[in-house]
Amino acid sequence: MRTLALALVAVIIPAAAAAETPAGLAAQADEALKSDQTAWDFVEGITTEVGPRQAGTEAEARGRAWAQDWLSRNGFARVMLEPYKMDTWLRGAERAEVVTPFPQKLVIAALGDSGSTGEGGITAPVVGFSSYAKLEAAPAGSLKGKIAFIDHSMRVTQDGSGYAFAGPVRWTGPALAASKGAVAAVIRSVGTDDHRTPHTGGTTFAEGVKPIPAGALSNPDADNLERMLARAGARGAELTMKLVLTPRFVGQTESGNVVSEITGRDPSLPPVLLACHLDSWDLGTGAIDDGAGCGIIAAAARHVAAAGQPLRTIRLLFAGAEETGVWGGNAYAAAHAKEPVAVAMESDFGADRVWRLDTNFTATNPELYKRLANAVARFGVSTSAVDASGGADIEIARQQGGAVIELQQDGTRYFDLHHTADDTLDKIDPAQLRQNVAVWTQVVGILANEPGPIKPAE
Amino acid sequence: MRTLALALVAVIIPAAAAAETPAGLAAQADEALKSDQTAWDFVEGITTEVGPRQAGTEAEARGRAWAQDWLSRNGFARVMLEPYKMDTWLRGAERAEVVTPFPQKLVIAALGDSGSTGEGGITAPVVGFSSYAKLEAAPAGSLKGKIAFIDHSMRVTQDGSGYAFAGPVRWTGPALAASKGAVAAVIRSVGTDDHRTPHTGGTTFAEGVKPIPAGALSNPDADNLERMLARAGARGAELTMKLVLTPRFVGQTESGNVVSEITGRDPSLPPVLLACHLDSWDLGTGAIDDGAGCGIIAAAARHVAAAGQPLRTIRLLFAGAEETGVWGGNAYAAAHAKEPVAVAMESDFGADRVWRLDTNFTATNPELYKRLANAVARFGVSTSAVDASGGADIEIARQQGGAVIELQQDGTRYFDLHHTADDTLDKIDPAQLRQNVAVWTQVVGILANEPGPIKPAE
Repeated sequence: MRTLALALVAVIIPAAAAAETPAGLAAQADEALKSDQTAWDFVEGITTEVGPRQAGTEAEARGRAWAQDWLSRNGFARVMLEPYKMDTWLRGAERAEVVTPFPQKLVIAALGDSGSTGEGGITAPVVGFSSYAKLEAAPAGSLKGKIAFIDHSMRVTQDGSGYAFAGPVRWTGPALAASKGAVAAVIRSVGTDDHRTPHTGGTTFAEGVKPIPAGALSNPDADNLERMLARAGARGAELTMKLVLTPRFVGQTESGNVVSEITGRDPSLPPVLLACHLDSWDLGTGAIDDGAGCGIIAAAARHVAAAGQPLRTIRLLFAGAEETGVWGGNAYAAAHAKEPVAVAMESDFGADRVWRLDTNFTATNPELYKRLANAVARFGVSTSAVDASGGADIEIARQQGGAVIELQQDGTRYFDLHHTADDTLDKIDPAQLRQNVAVWTQVVGILANEPGPIKPAE
Repeated sequence: MRTLALALVAVIIPAAAAAETPAGLAAQADEALKSDQTAWDFVEGITTEVGPRQAGTEAEARGRAWAQDWLSRNGFARVMLEPYKMDTWLRGAERAEVVTPFPQKLVIAALGDSGSTGEGGITAPVVGFSSYAKLEAAPAGSLKGKIAFIDHSMRVTQDGSGYAFAGPVRWTGPALAASKGAVAAVIRSVGTDDHRTPHTGGTTFAEGVKPIPAGALSNPDADNLERMLARAGARGAELTMKLVLTPRFVGQTESGNVVSEITGRDPSLPPVLLACHLDSWDLGTGAIDDGAGCGIIAAAARHVAAAGQPLRTIRLLFAGAEETGVWGGNAYAAAHAKEPVAVAMESDFGADRVWRLDTNFTATNPELYKRLANAVARFGVSTSAVDASGGADIEIARQQGGAVIELQQDGTRYFDLHHTADDTLDKIDPAQLRQNVAVWTQVVGILANEPGPIKPAE
C-alpha cells in the first residue's frame, strides 16, 4: 500500500513545491557546525543562572523569566508567556537503609508522585523481583506488609529504545506492587550509569488510588541490595529496610509556556513549530534535559533567519512542566488547536549528534524527504523508513494530523544522565552540540521556506 | 655514589642468598591471573555485608569482626584483634546553596575534622581563588566574614602524582583560609571525575586552632560556582552562599587492627609484612579504598602458601583508621617496634593493574631486585629507579630502616572514585584485580622464601 501511494504522490507534486531555500542556508549550517555559540550560550546561561527548574515551582518561574529575557536579547519576536495551572508534587527527605542482616545506607531518590512514608519512615521486609514480568507473576496479596524491590535493569541503546524496555518499571511498577499489597516500592534506577546518582522521574497511580512511597536506588545500590538479598536468602534470613520518603502534593500551582517567533515573509502560512521544554527534574540543572534542546532550536532558528527572512514563521515553544505530565504541551495544544501547524519538531534527547532523519511524510512526500535527507547527509545523518510520531510537547501536531520530523540523536550516553543530579553542563560535548545545531539549521531552513504542504493529505 | 655501591654489593652477595623459591610459585601466580577468586570474595563480601567502615565507629568494628571471621575461614593463623583508642569525628547534615544572585543548591560533603556551622548555618559572601597559590597570596585579614572557595583543579596521572599537586587544597587549604579570617571554606573536590559525588577526606587544623566549617563541592558544582562568580562579578554583584555543615567530634572511641599470618617454616626469621586498611570513608562502601587492598594481600598470601609453606612467616596487617590519621598503622608500629620486619608492602591504591616495581633496595640488593623484576615482567610490570618509601600503614618499616616495596598500580581511574560515594564494588575490574593478585603472589612468594637480608645494611 505504501509503495503504491509513493508512486502516485511522485506524479502529483505541484510546481509550487519547488525549493525556494535561500542560497546562503547551507553555508550558514556549515558555519554553525564550526562555530555556533548560541546553543551553548543558552544552556550555559540557564543552568548557571537558574539551575534546576522543577515544574510548578518558583524555580521554573525564574527559568521562564530568564528565557523570555534571553529570547528578547537574541532577536526573537512576540516573546509571550502563556500560563496554566498544574498539580504539583515536591520532594522531601529521602533516606533508605538496610536494617538487617547487613546494616548500611543506600542512596535513593523519590519518584515523582510518590507517596510519603511519614517522618518516622517505614521498616519492612524486602521482596526482590529481577524483572517487571516476575512482579506481574506475583500472586495477589503476596506483598502485603512488604517493600517490593524491582530490580529490572536497563541496557544502553543508541536509539533510546532501552527506555521502552526498562521504563515501565518506573512508570507503573510501584502501582503494580501496591496492587499486590506492597507498603512501598523501590526500583533499580531506569538508567545505564554506575554512579550513586539515582534516576528520578514520574510514576503513575490510577485515579483514586492512594500512592505508596516509591523511590529509585542508584545502580550500585541496586547491585548491592541484589547481593544482600541473595546472601540473606542463603542464610534463611529476612532482609529488612527502613525507608523515609516525605514528598508532598501541594495542589495547584502556576506553570507556563514561553512562546516566541522568527516572523516569516508570509505570516498567513502555517508556521514551522519547534519545541523543547524549560522545566527539569530538581536533582540536576537540566542541561541535557532539556536546556540543550531549547538552545538547539533557538540557535537553528537564528541561523535560518541570518540566511534571509524565511517564507513561513518559525514558532518556538519552550514548554513548561513536561517532566511531570506534559502540562505545557497539552496546554499549548488546547490553546492553539485552531491554528494549523505546517510541521512540528522537538528537541528533547540530550545534546549528542543527530544521526538519523525520521518523518511521518517519508512515503507521502518523498521529494521533500529526499531533499531534506540529501541536505543533511554531509553531517553524517542517515535516512530511515521509521514513521515519526514526534515528541511529547508537539501533541498539537498529532491532534491536527500534521507533519512531524524527528532528528534522532545519539542516545548512547543519554540514560547515564537522564533525571539524575549528573545532568549538568559539563556533560555537553560542544562539538556534538554544534553538529546538532547545523542539522537543525539545514532542516528548519528548508521547511521554513517550503511553500507547499509538508505532509500532503493522503 | 650509588653506582659505586652497586658494584660493591654485587661482589659481596653471600652464597646463602641464592633463591630457594618453590618450583610451583610461578605456576601459582599464573593461575591467579586466570582464576583468582579470593580477592574478589573478600571485597565483595565486606562491601556487601558491612559496607562503609568509618574509623572509630561501630561500622568499622563490624568490619573487623567480619574480617576476622573471613581470615579464619580462609586458613590464616593467629588471627588477632589489636585495639587502640582514637579521636573520632562524625559527619552531620551537609547542605550548600547559592542565595544570591543565582539561587540554586550545590552538592557538598564535609571534610574530615571540619568544624560545624551550627544547625542554622552560615550565610556569607564567597571569595574565589583559582589556585592554592592565589589563596596564599591573599592579604592577612582579607577573608574576614567571607567563605573562601578554593577552586584548584586536579588532573589525571597514571602514577597518582596529581594528588601531590591538588591534595594540599584539602589538607591545609581550609586552615590557610581560616588564618586569613574566613568563616568557612569550600574547596573543589580533590578528584578527577565529573559526577556529583564530592570527594571527602581529612583536613588539618593546627593544634589549638578552632576548626572552621570546611566542605568539598563536586566538580560539576565547582564548575558552576566558578561560572556564577564570574557572572556575578561582571554585574558587580556579590555572590552569597548558605552553608550548613553539622559534623561533631565525639572524643575517644575504640578502633583496632586485625593481624593474622601464614606461619613460615622458620618463625624465628623476621616476617614479610603485608598491609592494607580496613576502614573506609563513610560515603562509599570502601571497595577500591581499601577493601581491594586487603583482598589482594590476603589472596597473594594464600597462593604463596599453596605453593608450599614459605620459609618466612607472612604477616597480614589489616589496619584500622588509616583515613583519619593512620591511627592503626601508628599503633602497630608502636606495639611491634621491637619485632624486626624483613620487608613491608602495602596495597592501598585501588584495584587496577600493577605496572611498576619500586623498592628501597634496588641499588643495594640489585640481584634480588633483578630477580623480582624478571619474575613479574611477564605480567607487564616494568622496572624503575624510583626509591620506594612505602605506604602509610607500614610506618614500622620506615622506623626500622627496613626494606619496602611498592607495587605501583595504575591510578588513572583512582581519583575518579577516591573518598566518594562512588567507591563501590562495580568499579573493580575483575581482570585487573587478578593481575594484581598474580604480581603480588609472585613477589611475596620470592620474598617469603628469601633466606638472606632483603635490604642489606649499607
